[in-house]
Amino acid sequence: MSRIDGRTAEQLRPVTIERGWSKHAEGSVLVSFGDTKVLCTASFTEGVPRWRKGSGEGWVTAEYSMLPRATNTRGDRESVRGRIGGRTHEISRLIGRSLRAVVDTKALGENTVVLDCDVLQADGGTRTAAITGAYVALADAVAWARGKKLIRAGRQPLIGTVGAVSVGIVDGVPLLDLRYEEDVRADTDMNVVCTGDGRFVEVQGTAEAEPFDRKELNALLDLAAGGCADLAALQRAALDETTAATA
Amino acid sequence: MSRIDGRTAEQLRPVTIERGWSKHAEGSVLVSFGDTKVLCTASFTEGVPRWRKGSGEGWVTAEYSMLPRATNTRGDRESVRGRIGGRTHEISRLIGRSLRAVVDTKALGENTVVLDCDVLQADGGTRTAAITGAYVALADAVAWARGKKLIRAGRQPLIGTVGAVSVGIVDGVPLLDLRYEEDVRADTDMNVVCTGDGRFVEVQGTAEAEPFDRKELNALLDLAAGGCADLAALQRAALDETTAATA
Amino acid sequence: MSRIDGRTAEQLRPVTIERGWSKHAEGSVLVSFGDTKVLCTASFTEGVPRWRKGSGEGWVTAEYSMLPRATNTRGDRESVRGRIGGRTHEISRLIGRSLRAVVDTKALGENTVVLDCDVLQADGGTRTAAITGAYVALADAVAWARGKKLIRAGRQPLIGTVGAVSVGIVDGVPLLDLRYEEDVRADTDMNVVCTGDGRFVEVQGTAEAEPFDRKELNALLDLAAGGCADLAALQRAALDETTAATA
Amino acid sequence: MSRIDGRTAEQLRPVTIERGWSKHAEGSVLVSFGDTKVLCTASFTEGVPRWRKGSGEGWVTAEYSMLPRATNTRGDRESVRGRIGGRTHEISRLIGRSLRAVVDTKALGENTVVLDCDVLQADGGTRTAAITGAYVALADAVAWARGKKLIRAGRQPLIGTVGAVSVGIVDGVPLLDLRYEEDVRADTDMNVVCTGDGRFVEVQGTAEAEPFDRKELNALLDLAAGGCADLAALQRAALDETTAATA
Amino acid sequence: MSRIDGRTAEQLRPVTIERGWSKHAEGSVLVSFGDTKVLCTASFTEGVPRWRKGSGEGWVTAEYSMLPRATNTRGDRESVRGRIGGRTHEISRLIGRSLRAVVDTKALGENTVVLDCDVLQADGGTRTAAITGAYVALADAVAWARGKKLIRAGRQPLIGTVGAVSVGIVDGVPLLDLRYEEDVRADTDMNVVCTGDGRFVEVQGTAEAEPFDRKELNALLDLAAGGCADLAALQRAALDETTAATA
Amino acid sequence: MSRIDGRTAEQLRPVTIERGWSKHAEGSVLVSFGDTKVLCTASFTEGVPRWRKGSGEGWVTAEYSMLPRATNTRGDRESVRGRIGGRTHEISRLIGRSLRAVVDTKALGENTVVLDCDVLQADGGTRTAAITGAYVALADAVAWARGKKLIRAGRQPLIGTVGAVSVGIVDGVPLLDLRYEEDVRADTDMNVVCTGDGRFVEVQGTAEAEPFDRKELNALLDLAAGGCADLAALQRAALDETTAATA
Repeated sequence: MSRIDGRTAEQLRPVTIERGWSKHAEGSVLVSFGDTKVLCTASFTEGVPRWRKGSGEGWVTAEYSMLPRATNTRGDRESVRGRIGGRTHEISRLIGRSLRAVVDTKALGENTVVLDCDVLQADGGTRTAAITGAYVALADAVAWARGKKLIRAGRQPLIGTVGAVSVGIVDGVPLLDLRYEEDVRADTDMNVVCTGDGRFVEVQGTAEAEPFDRKELNALLDLAAGGCADLAALQRAALDETTAATA
Repeated sequence: MSRIDGRTAEQLRPVTIERGWSKHAEGSVLVSFGDTKVLCTASFTEGVPRWRKGSGEGWVTAEYSMLPRATNTRGDRESVRGRIGGRTHEISRLIGRSLRAVVDTKALGENTVVLDCDVLQADGGTRTAAITGAYVALADAVAWARGKKLIRAGRQPLIGTVGAVSVGIVDGVPLLDLRYEEDVRADTDMNVVCTGDGRFVEVQGTAEAEPFDRKELNALLDLAAGGCADLAALQRAALDETTAATA
Repeated sequence: MSRIDGRTAEQLRPVTIERGWSKHAEGSVLVSFGDTKVLCTASFTEGVPRWRKGSGEGWVTAEYSMLPRATNTRGDRESVRGRIGGRTHEISRLIGRSLRAVVDTKALGENTVVLDCDVLQADGGTRTAAITGAYVALADAVAWARGKKLIRAGRQPLIGTVGAVSVGIVDGVPLLDLRYEEDVRADTDMNVVCTGDGRFVEVQGTAEAEPFDRKELNALLDLAAGGCADLAALQRAALDETTAATA
Repeated sequence: MSRIDGRTAEQLRPVTIERGWSKHAEGSVLVSFGDTKVLCTASFTEGVPRWRKGSGEGWVTAEYSMLPRATNTRGDRESVRGRIGGRTHEISRLIGRSLRAVVDTKALGENTVVLDCDVLQADGGTRTAAITGAYVALADAVAWARGKKLIRAGRQPLIGTVGAVSVGIVDGVPLLDLRYEEDVRADTDMNVVCTGDGRFVEVQGTAEAEPFDRKELNALLDLAAGGCADLAALQRAALDETTAATA
Repeated sequence: MSRIDGRTAEQLRPVTIERGWSKHAEGSVLVSFGDTKVLCTASFTEGVPRWRKGSGEGWVTAEYSMLPRATNTRGDRESVRGRIGGRTHEISRLIGRSLRAVVDTKALGENTVVLDCDVLQADGGTRTAAITGAYVALADAVAWARGKKLIRAGRQPLIGTVGAVSVGIVDGVPLLDLRYEEDVRADTDMNVVCTGDGRFVEVQGTAEAEPFDRKELNALLDLAAGGCADLAALQRAALDETTAATA
Repeated sequence: MSRIDGRTAEQLRPVTIERGWSKHAEGSVLVSFGDTKVLCTASFTEGVPRWRKGSGEGWVTAEYSMLPRATNTRGDRESVRGRIGGRTHEISRLIGRSLRAVVDTKALGENTVVLDCDVLQADGGTRTAAITGAYVALADAVAWARGKKLIRAGRQPLIGTVGAVSVGIVDGVPLLDLRYEEDVRADTDMNVVCTGDGRFVEVQGTAEAEPFDRKELNALLDLAAGGCADLAALQRAALDETTAATA
């Protein structure tokens, strides 16, 4: 079976990671997974939320959102409706947890990093692109803060790298990195967040149409592990380029 | 290692499923997993939300909430704050998806079932208890509707059973059905929703402290599969008792 | 005339007051007036709201809510609608005022007690059941705090007891403690809150269909006074049992 | 004992009822009870809310509000806070119920009257002034609608008149129509809504400091009955003047 | 062409400025431009919002609102809808900016003045009436504060006067101070805020039907300048009367 | 005086208009005025809001928003705060009015176009860039709809072109198209919206520090007229390029 865009089952879409996209943010990345484009900015500020003051530890959190016309039909703005939807909440929390998994909040000191992940164009896999891009923005913000001596010398708040990819079973075939057309036809849909050394941070599998068995789950995990390894390499390559000229 | 309450690693807490708890609801269950107590009511109404009208298909959805003092320290009411929190949204959506996985919405016809899962007392595993209890309440509501001829003769909207359990790694040991004290100490926390025939509906694993590897993931899935099988037996037993006198 | 459930006009429904219902709260009561069941928890915390700091006085407040399917047809959750309705506000304020009428806030010291009254099942008289149960939960929370030395030795914040009952005129006959079926048919509906020594804390009479005259008002007050005296005896009996094992 | 403003215990403050205050509303009254001034407008529209369509019956409802600086210290606007407070809700509901007590909704036909009661200046007794003024505005709106043939010939939606007054016990003395300075010092505070023929529509007594006994309650009801009779006469006199030139 | 009410093109409606309307506010004015009536209160409080503390400077802000039946058809209350509309926000901001243009916040010291402008009856030009009246209320509140020594001796926070008027092109003719009937027929609508010495604080012109050219713009500005000069004289006259007996 | 970036007083920043930026929207433009970047999408849908149904006329509206880190310090998301701020409301309304000034809603037929203007990076003049870009996106959406025969043959809903620019007085010198650093230092700030034939749609001038006189106003209007003419030429040039491949 060949996929809509000619990829093999275990192949990622073309992924680009454009650092230094915004002149204001301490770290900023425009990440694309095919036609999915997410602007990830990392805002570094001294100080922590009230409930964390005096702990000596920092805080990393994330907010995800979609522009109204990122999708095929226009969605209402959550600011206009006056409420954040369940899906937005869920993804914001997922991104925050995923990044905190590779942060040593003690080494960060009492500083806060907010990752804003705004989907400019959506074509499936927006949350996994967001995590993958946000990690790079976070790395740039941390580098910026170390340059400014806002993090104590010798301390490294990043204790690993993190990326994410979606996998799913479409017409009985496990596929990596689903586009929107594949996603809507998937029986099972899974988002997997991995560290650069291949361990799991989050595994979220959902039976969309038909419950899945252990063998299918294993096939999906295999695919995801491969995709995450590819993404980790792409993140490394992006970060090896000349440092982003930010802030 | 023995657990706080003397259970073995693969043992559930005492589980009770009390049907017909409420005189008003078409199905109602007070489910307890140890000290976790959740009141699950199923409200059956003719008709469907506007976006589904004319489709010939029904709708099943869920709302989860905690009483303010279900927990050790009192939490603010979401009605008073004027917003539903991300966690509540996330769990409500999980319960709804889990139950829809075993519902044939065409057989249900243009009817709606709302599952309200209100945590009266919390001691870990509230979302898994909610799913397990809500299934039984749903089964009673469907039986009620068939008795009232609100579902066409010969149609069976329930195409399987569903239950859920939490698993986690505490001090390096995979454990089934975590109590609150275990949950806060867990490195990895996973909620698994299974059908009665042993397939997966949802797998949500989160590294709370340390990323987990494939071997640990497999051990957790093994434990969860066993727990879900036990819960399916308890659900069957509860439903075999004399029909609840509801509504 | 005999009532639906065979009671006389001046008879309460069977009332039960189950202390220590929740393992977390400092005081907790599941109170039932017939099929009306309300879970009342008293949460005792040190400190007072900002506007009361430094006054040396404590604060007692209440929040009332109904589970969505406590009633015959499911109601929307106020948390989902994003606003508390007028009826909820009104009853929460009534419960708070009623309890403060028997509290010496100076003796309480700078501590706060929040009474949460959640209606699990409704069959008329939920606000009066809530007040009656909340008083017992409050008494347990105060006893707990005295045991913990959070209230100064020799001080007694409770300067009386309080309970409440509904009365109404149905088909021209004044009746005590209306069930839902009676309530909807009542011409006049009145809620009366009394102290244990027979004085009034609140009298709220409303003409639902027909204005009422002084004679009818007097008949209703007579009935209510009798019902409140019965409830005070039941509260005393409940509190005389072995102290609830809470918190 | 003489009162601050020299009144006797059973004397109302100077009451003025100025009809036709607004050029837009179908009925409008600026009512004052001493320094308390409330603008009451009655908006008559054809049609009823969705839940009442097809019933053949009309609807009368009320909304109460205070301008931010109606009081001695400025209060936040509820529109800015984004929520209506409990007190506002409670009073709006009271006004609506009080007026509906003298309306025959069948005779009104499928029309709606909204009474807006906005307190321009507050000095105690704003809810009772609002009810008293709103009745007159309602009467003018009904007369307007009859003139426009929006109400069927021969039908009279008003089946009585309604007014309200506050009473309270200050320093042990029952007083009629409390000013703000008296209100804050009252042990017991009661609002009484009466029809023009002297029956009760609402009786709301609250022990502010000390519970009250039956004798005190009787004294307050006597005072209120007298005050309501005086108000009914003032309403009649106002309505006997040349018809307000409205809308 | 003669106008509906017989005015010439460059003539204001009858303007009245009634000081000391409210007994509570430090400054209060009922201003009317023909049938447009706005109650403007100035609330003077010591202290400033948190973000301004320690700056030594004061703060002046405004809130505008309309009573529901100030207009020909009843509008929903923003407090009931739970949100302030865009128009309200826009006008509140305009009033605040206009008044701050004539305030020396250093001379005011760390004090706050809130101007509440509530439209009791609307007939076009409510925002310009509000600015014109609010200035007078502000002047009275400042005088009050100087009398109370809340502003340091020798300091004068008011560095000018401010008023506002609407202009528009109706059927090709530029007109001053539009009534509602004129406003809805205007091709271009402009609000102009001027200081007493004839300079501009705000110029907001909007093409309602047809874009306007430079010549038309000039004609409107000429008209507005004349109207503002007339209003400045009326403000001076009002303030020259015996000081309002406020607060 | 030379400006920060070497421009003359009457010179625009480099302006780019990139059509077809989004694959989903019927019209989409990434517009930049120097470092200010705004993504404008035009969503064309058949049908109109309820209040316009049956009128035969279409509707054009706009929503403006800023990404949280579009600015130098991160702002809270309005969706998280649960309310749209006054500034956002004001600008959304301005954009909508400006575009409607060049739309013949009868020719549009009962169709709706929503313009979403999301500021990705801000450096002054975001509202004027938004209007300028939104016009081009609207033109593409209208062309798309004509191609799809959603607009009747021979009808042209666009009756002109529209663009906008800011002007201000900085250190006494009138300047065109202010950058953020200039904007914060401006005494007077004005936004001018013009049609392509040089007439005015909106003129909004505000004295930030010092009121301005007629001569200064004239100088600003002269500058703005020149800038708008330049923008109209740039819009024409952008639209003359090969049609954007959208939707």
